[in-house]
Amino acid sequence: MAASDKNNDGGNHSLEELREAIDGIDEQVVSLLAKRQRVVKRVTEIKKVRNLPVYHPSREEDLISSRRSQGASAGLDPDYIEEIYRIILRQSRVEQTQRMGKKAVFPGGIVLIVGGKGEMGRYFERRFVEAGYQVRILDKADWPDVKQLCDGIHLALVSVPIDRTNQIIGRIAPYLPKDAILADITSIKSSPLTAMLEAHEGPVVGLHPMFGPTTSTIDKQIVVATPGRRLPECQWLLDQFTAWGSVIVTADAREHDEIMDLVQGLRHFASFAIGRFLSLKNIDLERTLDFTSPIYRLELGMVGRLFAQDPSLYCEIIFASKERRDLLREYVQSLQDNLDMLEENNKDRFRDEFAKIAEWFGPFSEQAMRESTFIIDKLIERF
Amino acid sequence: MAASDKNNDGGNHSLEELREAIDGIDEQVVSLLAKRQRVVKRVTEIKKVRNLPVYHPSREEDLISSRRSQGASAGLDPDYIEEIYRIILRQSRVEQTQRMGKKAVFPGGIVLIVGGKGEMGRYFERRFVEAGYQVRILDKADWPDVKQLCDGIHLALVSVPIDRTNQIIGRIAPYLPKDAILADITSIKSSPLTAMLEAHEGPVVGLHPMFGPTTSTIDKQIVVATPGRRLPECQWLLDQFTAWGSVIVTADAREHDEIMDLVQGLRHFASFAIGRFLSLKNIDLERTLDFTSPIYRLELGMVGRLFAQDPSLYCEIIFASKERRDLLREYVQSLQDNLDMLEENNKDRFRDEFAKIAEWFGPFSEQAMRESTFIIDKLIERF
Repeated sequence: MAASDKNNDGGNHSLEELREAIDGIDEQVVSLLAKRQRVVKRVTEIKKVRNLPVYHPSREEDLISSRRSQGASAGLDPDYIEEIYRIILRQSRVEQTQRMGKKAVFPGGIVLIVGGKGEMGRYFERRFVEAGYQVRILDKADWPDVKQLCDGIHLALVSVPIDRTNQIIGRIAPYLPKDAILADITSIKSSPLTAMLEAHEGPVVGLHPMFGPTTSTIDKQIVVATPGRRLPECQWLLDQFTAWGSVIVTADAREHDEIMDLVQGLRHFASFAIGRFLSLKNIDLERTLDFTSPIYRLELGMVGRLFAQDPSLYCEIIFASKERRDLLREYVQSLQDNLDMLEENNKDRFRDEFAKIAEWFGPFSEQAMRESTFIIDKLIERF
Repeated sequence: MAASDKNNDGGNHSLEELREAIDGIDEQVVSLLAKRQRVVKRVTEIKKVRNLPVYHPSREEDLISSRRSQGASAGLDPDYIEEIYRIILRQSRVEQTQRMGKKAVFPGGIVLIVGGKGEMGRYFERRFVEAGYQVRILDKADWPDVKQLCDGIHLALVSVPIDRTNQIIGRIAPYLPKDAILADITSIKSSPLTAMLEAHEGPVVGLHPMFGPTTSTIDKQIVVATPGRRLPECQWLLDQFTAWGSVIVTADAREHDEIMDLVQGLRHFASFAIGRFLSLKNIDLERTLDFTSPIYRLELGMVGRLFAQDPSLYCEIIFASKERRDLLREYVQSLQDNLDMLEENNKDRFRDEFAKIAEWFGPFSEQAMRESTFIIDKLIERF
């Protein structure tokens, strides 16, 4: 026993020493990351002068493979090193984008944000101001000054709730300079685009930024652009989004809306329905979280996050159009059919349907499996 | 123009130099991580000798705060540093757990896995073998040898599909040594636990590992334990899960099942229904992904991943019990009510219901918002 005690003491001492050694290593790692950031800052200055893009995929992939090989030779898991380097590179991109984004693609441009006091309006106000544009706001109370506010502007960006978009477009258009761009950021596109083309003779483009004002970074986020008229004159606006790090996807307004019926309408309706059912059953949320596998926590979080947001926004998204409401009816009807399978205890049919759906999903389901497993690992590490 | 060209040349040269400087820094970072891993290995050896836990939350939190402060003083975003360190610490835990997990909590234990050729069975076979247990497998073809396979075992772990669990329990029990633990890993617990208690007089515990065989790490994963009989004699089995890095949550079998009706039944049914609807509408999955915000990609991935898995497993989970099927019927009925709101174009009622649900979710929704925003950032960085 004495010998064992002695070992423990010796071990204790040594454990402390090893922890100090780890702290010393960690301090050096953080110093190196700070040094790295200073070098990246100098890289950004050069890129800014030369108008080079922030994102340089081949350089990033080369860098990651060098570090993976070095790590593997040193006995480290290369996936672990890649994970760390994905974060380091993202941080580097975010910082570069922040610096580059402060440069206006159209220097001297004057931007009017119509509905500038809403959350998205305020968000774009900050971005345009940061980039050096002159930004004016037209909100409810500012209509008496509309003529003056529109004088000499290069862009009117309509950022108002879906159900008022067309009306506001009709109201603002007569005051616009004839070569000013008229653009909106509504989450449906056909009807506002038609309204803009009717009301304004100049350049027109419909935009749908696929992110909300709470998204912490615009980096790599998608913005759908539905061309209206005189697209080349709208190009600087699209380029400004690209300078902020966004990716522009061009689409026909009707195609956009059909896809959004599913991507936004069905998705939010389904989350609303689950949230409502959980609240009606008054389940013990806390206790279910004790039993949480990370993926359940994530799925419940997807539902929960909806209810941290603006009811009117989601009301407008879910109720957006007759087509969307028709689609949701079809969805509810298809659920009844699923229920019938259950009531008949028809397991054969269930497995059959399951296999057919799996075939329809094709390679996507395997990819989804890999991606979500990656995400689950992230959740485990963080929470 | 000549001056500007010269600047560009100078800049070009300099960009190369700066990139080399970055590569040099990165090489040092990876060397330090390798050095760190070697020190952690020595820490593990000490922990192993002294039976200390792998996960030491306060040490981890202290370490992260020191690195955050150091980073902040050096002009780095402390959240960025924390993110990197969460990964480094997870990796450190995973490696420690791998080494520690190779130690059996009950040295010399003999484990029989009933249904050892299924995916979960094979998974646990690997884990128990790795930890140094003697592992035997009883699958369909092995029943003629059942007597011999059960001879002298300390644990029979039943890992078979839900609809056969009770029958297999009844079949194996007569062959078990009277002090052997009888345990199952079925995703419902009341009925198998009752079956085990009836069939076997010795120690009994029901387990539900909240992860599948595809999960890349068992680290921090939850295992629900529903006590049956002579729990202290089952403790080594629970401790073995803890040694593998799992977290044991103890629950009454009925409470477990009620929660799982929601956590598994409703969730998988809802995902199945969405997947089926998308396939019936035959939507262009690829094109919707072009428009993907990261959160849509994630939600679609949650549905898609279901169909990369075993139809029978999900069939058993969804059809598990009459209680579960009743709950799903209630859910489909509640959807009809949501649809009525839409058909009546009753936005006021929608906003009202939304606000009530938000209140019911309480602080969870804000937390979900933060967590899912974190996850979205992860997705952006990775894909």
